[in-house]
Amino acid sequence: MYLEQIQNINDIKDIDPKAYEELAQEIRDFLIHKISVTGGHLGSNLGAVELTMALHLALKLPEDKIIWDVGHQSYTHKILTGRKEGFDGLRQFHGMSGFPKRKESCCDAFDTGHSSTSISAGLGLVKARDIQGLDQTIVSVIGDGAMTGGMAYEALNNAGKLETNFIIILNDNNMSISENVGGVSKYLNNIRTADSYLDLKKGIYEALRGTPRGKNMVSGIRRVKSSFKQLVIPGMLFEDMGITYLGPVDGHNIPALVRVIQEARRVNGAVMIHALTQKGKGYAPAERHPARFHGADPFDVETGLPTRPHTTPSYTDVFSTVMCKLGGRDEKVVAITAAMPDGTGLKRFRNMYPERFFDVGIAEEHAVTFAAGLAAGGMKPVVAVYSSFLQRAYDQILHDVCIQNLPVVFAIDRAGLVGSDGETHQGIFDLSYLTNIPNMHVCAPKNKWELADMLKYAVVFGGPMAIRYPRGEAYDGLREFREPVVCGRAEWIYREGEIALFAVGSMVKTAELVREKLKADGLRVSLINARFVKPIDREAVLEACEEHKLLVTLEENVSAGGYGEKVLRLLCEERKAVDCLQVALPDAYIEHGNVEKLKSEIGMDADSICRRIRERMAGA
Amino acid sequence: MYLEQIQNINDIKDIDPKAYEELAQEIRDFLIHKISVTGGHLGSNLGAVELTMALHLALKLPEDKIIWDVGHQSYTHKILTGRKEGFDGLRQFHGMSGFPKRKESCCDAFDTGHSSTSISAGLGLVKARDIQGLDQTIVSVIGDGAMTGGMAYEALNNAGKLETNFIIILNDNNMSISENVGGVSKYLNNIRTADSYLDLKKGIYEALRGTPRGKNMVSGIRRVKSSFKQLVIPGMLFEDMGITYLGPVDGHNIPALVRVIQEARRVNGAVMIHALTQKGKGYAPAERHPARFHGADPFDVETGLPTRPHTTPSYTDVFSTVMCKLGGRDEKVVAITAAMPDGTGLKRFRNMYPERFFDVGIAEEHAVTFAAGLAAGGMKPVVAVYSSFLQRAYDQILHDVCIQNLPVVFAIDRAGLVGSDGETHQGIFDLSYLTNIPNMHVCAPKNKWELADMLKYAVVFGGPMAIRYPRGEAYDGLREFREPVVCGRAEWIYREGEIALFAVGSMVKTAELVREKLKADGLRVSLINARFVKPIDREAVLEACEEHKLLVTLEENVSAGGYGEKVLRLLCEERKAVDCLQVALPDAYIEHGNVEKLKSEIGMDADSICRRIRERMAGA
Repeated sequence: MYLEQIQNINDIKDIDPKAYEELAQEIRDFLIHKISVTGGHLGSNLGAVELTMALHLALKLPEDKIIWDVGHQSYTHKILTGRKEGFDGLRQFHGMSGFPKRKESCCDAFDTGHSSTSISAGLGLVKARDIQGLDQTIVSVIGDGAMTGGMAYEALNNAGKLETNFIIILNDNNMSISENVGGVSKYLNNIRTADSYLDLKKGIYEALRGTPRGKNMVSGIRRVKSSFKQLVIPGMLFEDMGITYLGPVDGHNIPALVRVIQEARRVNGAVMIHALTQKGKGYAPAERHPARFHGADPFDVETGLPTRPHTTPSYTDVFSTVMCKLGGRDEKVVAITAAMPDGTGLKRFRNMYPERFFDVGIAEEHAVTFAAGLAAGGMKPVVAVYSSFLQRAYDQILHDVCIQNLPVVFAIDRAGLVGSDGETHQGIFDLSYLTNIPNMHVCAPKNKWELADMLKYAVVFGGPMAIRYPRGEAYDGLREFREPVVCGRAEWIYREGEIALFAVGSMVKTAELVREKLKADGLRVSLINARFVKPIDREAVLEACEEHKLLVTLEENVSAGGYGEKVLRLLCEERKAVDCLQVALPDAYIEHGNVEKLKSEIGMDADSICRRIRERMAGA
Repeated sequence: MYLEQIQNINDIKDIDPKAYEELAQEIRDFLIHKISVTGGHLGSNLGAVELTMALHLALKLPEDKIIWDVGHQSYTHKILTGRKEGFDGLRQFHGMSGFPKRKESCCDAFDTGHSSTSISAGLGLVKARDIQGLDQTIVSVIGDGAMTGGMAYEALNNAGKLETNFIIILNDNNMSISENVGGVSKYLNNIRTADSYLDLKKGIYEALRGTPRGKNMVSGIRRVKSSFKQLVIPGMLFEDMGITYLGPVDGHNIPALVRVIQEARRVNGAVMIHALTQKGKGYAPAERHPARFHGADPFDVETGLPTRPHTTPSYTDVFSTVMCKLGGRDEKVVAITAAMPDGTGLKRFRNMYPERFFDVGIAEEHAVTFAAGLAAGGMKPVVAVYSSFLQRAYDQILHDVCIQNLPVVFAIDRAGLVGSDGETHQGIFDLSYLTNIPNMHVCAPKNKWELADMLKYAVVFGGPMAIRYPRGEAYDGLREFREPVVCGRAEWIYREGEIALFAVGSMVKTAELVREKLKADGLRVSLINARFVKPIDREAVLEACEEHKLLVTLEENVSAGGYGEKVLRLLCEERKAVDCLQVALPDAYIEHGNVEKLKSEIGMDADSICRRIRERMAGA
């Protein structure tokens, strides 16, 4: 077992080069075994085993810096930097993160999680190095999917000016999370498939040399562009931007990778190594189903099937079904995703109405303004997106959708705590960042029926509207409460007096539990489903003031700028002196872990909430 | 006067082609004359006269759609669509906007203001057209500066897949607002300067044809790439992405432009017309000083000098001076701008410390993550940016800076109402979108001395900190109040009891006026300079509760998520029942116009605020 010899940074350098392949295999077996138990990102990690080994062989850590774009492919890096033991607690509460974390290791140079940030961060480290005159090699590792994000291009555009070394490794598996899209993807594909390219380059060169006119041509081209090779080699797109291109290279061939990294270190300027890899490499189920093994639940290693298959539908499933219905009913309904047809549930819509489905790549900014254009052209676009990724498009929502009051629907999945992906992926800011935007409307369903009703309402509403719903199983309780959705109107579920619980979306279910517990104490408790966070139901709040001693607001969002503050503002405007209690997430990033555990840790579970309410009532 | 014949859409089509140049000259004279009185964007409009005329000649409006990226170059378009009379009230309260507005004309297809949105919006209109089977030509006009924004690339990447017509006009003046930066800029410059390029293409083709080996080569290349021309023509970068490239074409030659637009309409797919223009064309002062005439104050037509030169320093000037001092004092201080060295005042820092100054192009997302990288590498980066443009980087602040608690300073200029640029440029959301981010610190100075103190404090603070200050003259009153800046501590200016005014930044000056007026009524009024909006000074607020009947919060920001709500939450948490009044901007986009006029219109002037306070006290 060579893996046993890997206990700390740079231990890999003591491994016999002849054993590299065996070590790679051991790492793969280790990853498959561990992830089958804990769940985690499998496919991207299996694809990056050799690339990571080569980086650790060619570089000197921790002095040299590797920035892992997105970061979910950093498991082998964690193994090679002394964190093998962490895999038993991977992505669990107080366990090891599934992403690079500076606080976890001196070898993690920059925290990542969202896509397309690594070249920007890497350039920052390069400039810091140069100003301080340090001797470091800095490498950003970015997937071809992440290359569809505009930030990567902004950074490349700046990297093109560099006069000192900076290595970008394009880890190209022709796959973002589902499948890759767009012009650049087509371009990369051309490079991948055109074996004849390098021959062509040589051939043209020779052909030109062979004629008197051609000779002048070569020097003429040399004068105009910086070198002839730019005209005909693959990677021209990058070379055109001023970035030296090396490749393509087999991303599973360790000696070849080490060689090209060493070559790249000698370039003065930005250099891109184009490595071809296979997602899921070495594990047949993951090779066959890359989307399913992108972020995998625990699975059976033999069959590749989930150990605990989902039986009840998720909110994503409900969204998926209703979208298909709406698509059939109204030809103006179009759907947009940023590289997440599987994750958002739009895959079925795509299969049924391919001409009205748009996967724009990992490009949330474009997605939103593109939707605004569709709406300006008379369509009814639905942008399906995860809460934390929509943060990327804050300005596009504010500037391109809402100033023009365009009817774009935002179906915001993974809103609230998401669990094992942790800090970078928690969807706990959307109520705040969306509701400070004029003309925006924001609602959240209490259960799966309400998600369906809200979505149907939103597509005919005629202005910007966001619906936010959590990850995981759709709640199917309270189905008898199904008043028609009306913008800005809350729904009274129980009306008793004394304590009024105003709960947003996912917190309605929690509020039910809270109510039962408080009733057992002999308290009278009303429950109001807020439904709309913008605009809030002023009437319901003012009514509740008359009949209750304490208003409690409950939301799975940070308190700053959330629902609770809106209720307080209304009460202040109306000079109501009723006592209030805010149940919301703290002003902090919430780490990874089981959602229920996280909730009880931060006081968002029914017991903690009851305790706070009782204290408040006692102190009244 | 041909311009007199232009009264409405398509009137230009009745003009004798021989008179086009004369009409262009008349439009230029009209623009120079009008903008010299009202102020406005001059350089970009003078550069786009012929291009706009050609578009109106070649297209059929309003059926065909033109999307103007950024939109400040749309003045000729406004003239040609019946809005000549609007120029007397250009950018004034209730007058014509300086940007395209759908509510202003059926010929304005999409509202713009921020950079790099036009290709996304255009693609949306294209897809809406195709789904509905309409016959429309859709044209996005984008500057080379806007091409440095990542969104443009995300959109191009998607445009490369199109199989129906979509025209992108690259209006290339080698200039964003100041000067252009980056690899793509260099690339475009190569095209511009390489007259020999088209000859080369022809030459290589002939050379290859002339040899037996070459003949095979040509067909070989044809097979691999879609056509030979892609290998050698300028515009390969775009062709590589699947976009047909036409050009370069003289952007001041109307017949040539009309021809190429007509040619472009026949392309099935996305096509880019590369038009070379000169910013400020036809007006010598604007040709010589493109940055100054980008957004010009009223000026003397003869000399080009401002009619009312600034005599008192602006906040930008103060920032500029202090940055130069800090740069000299500490070699770790670095400065970053997104294409605004002039506007943000960083030009002097650039001249003094060129190796520590970074202009990244119109790329706010990259700017922020690049700064995070610099901070992770040990530097003390200051990102100088306008409030409304920083909206673009919300996720980068949240995800790349604040999770890692990196010491990045945000110097946020143009915070609050900016006036004549209107809805898209008002900096009225930053307090909301920044303060919902964990680990972020946000402050605002009351006067120019405090801006200096806060900036000095922020660069050594050790975590993310934003300082927001308004456009225009720096307040130099209250200079005797200069307590040291301490994170989260407010400053008591007057302490009297009865009414407590908690004012944020620019509103301290207004609050002084309010206080004087209320004191004349015999009221006792305390004035507290909030200084920090995150974290707020809990102690100061709680102290004020004890001694005052009414707390008034004043901020030049929307109320949702702003300072006032934070004070309310604190009072709720602490169960204080003191009466509160929030003075903040309404939940609405604020149009263009003189800032003082806008403030009185929305009740943010001293008189309106006094009235509200008196009403509140009377009702108490």
